[in-house]
Amino acid sequence: MFTLNERLKADTIEVGCLELSLLLLMNDRSLPWLILVPEREGINEIDELSTAERSVLIEEISCVSGVIRELYHPVKINVGALGNLVSQLHVHVIGRFPKDRAWPGPIWGTGPIVAYGTDELNEVSAKIRASLKGWLK
Amino acid sequence: MFTLNERLKADTIEVGCLELSLLLLMNDRSLPWLILVPEREGINEIDELSTAERSVLIEEISCVSGVIRELYHPVKINVGALGNLVSQLHVHVIGRFPKDRAWPGPIWGTGPIVAYGTDELNEVSAKIRASLKGWLK
Repeated sequence: MFTLNERLKADTIEVGCLELSLLLLMNDRSLPWLILVPEREGINEIDELSTAERSVLIEEISCVSGVIRELYHPVKINVGALGNLVSQLHVHVIGRFPKDRAWPGPIWGTGPIVAYGTDELNEVSAKIRASLKGWLK
Repeated sequence: MFTLNERLKADTIEVGCLELSLLLLMNDRSLPWLILVPEREGINEIDELSTAERSVLIEEISCVSGVIRELYHPVKINVGALGNLVSQLHVHVIGRFPKDRAWPGPIWGTGPIVAYGTDELNEVSAKIRASLKGWLK
């Protein structure tokens, strides 16, 4: 029985379910920031997944990287599984730009975070889902 | 023909070669910090690797995570492929501790970095190689 961490739930909007992971959109309109959470209870580290699950995870990371590139044309994709604050395994996939608030440093822990408006959120979620094509369950 | 980025070369010591990646030790004695660099020329992003290469990469990330846990007992492993400064694809695998200099924030871009002494470096490299067992080419 998988339960999404409360802090992840509070900071994000659910985009959909992939084969292994729940895909979340960070509620930060300043840059494209998606989070993959493998739906496996009690997993904190990549090496706690099975080999088969890890293969799926890296394909999902790759897919989401491609979606962000297609929709936003960032100069770099940042991928990170940190978990110092929320130990539940979650993988950030973020499009970065030379004019974003933390460039060239890491984005985690920086602010201010500006939430999406409701219409904008629906629009962004819809375009991500469209770009995910066959990847959504 | 794969060439390691000059900045990565300057900041690290080579530990050995795995199936896909060159394994580097960040020359920072304050925490266990390893870097995997897939030996493929011109690759900047995870989704530029092939599916087969990605499967190997995530197994190497998993292996190196286990080595760090076995040798250092961190409270969390941080895995990151950023590349905002060095675009050549490289994946950090770092053991994190509540008393380290950046906890709970990301370690990238923080300092001061204190280099290993020569004897210590040989000792650390040797114990990592021993822990990698059959993973080294």
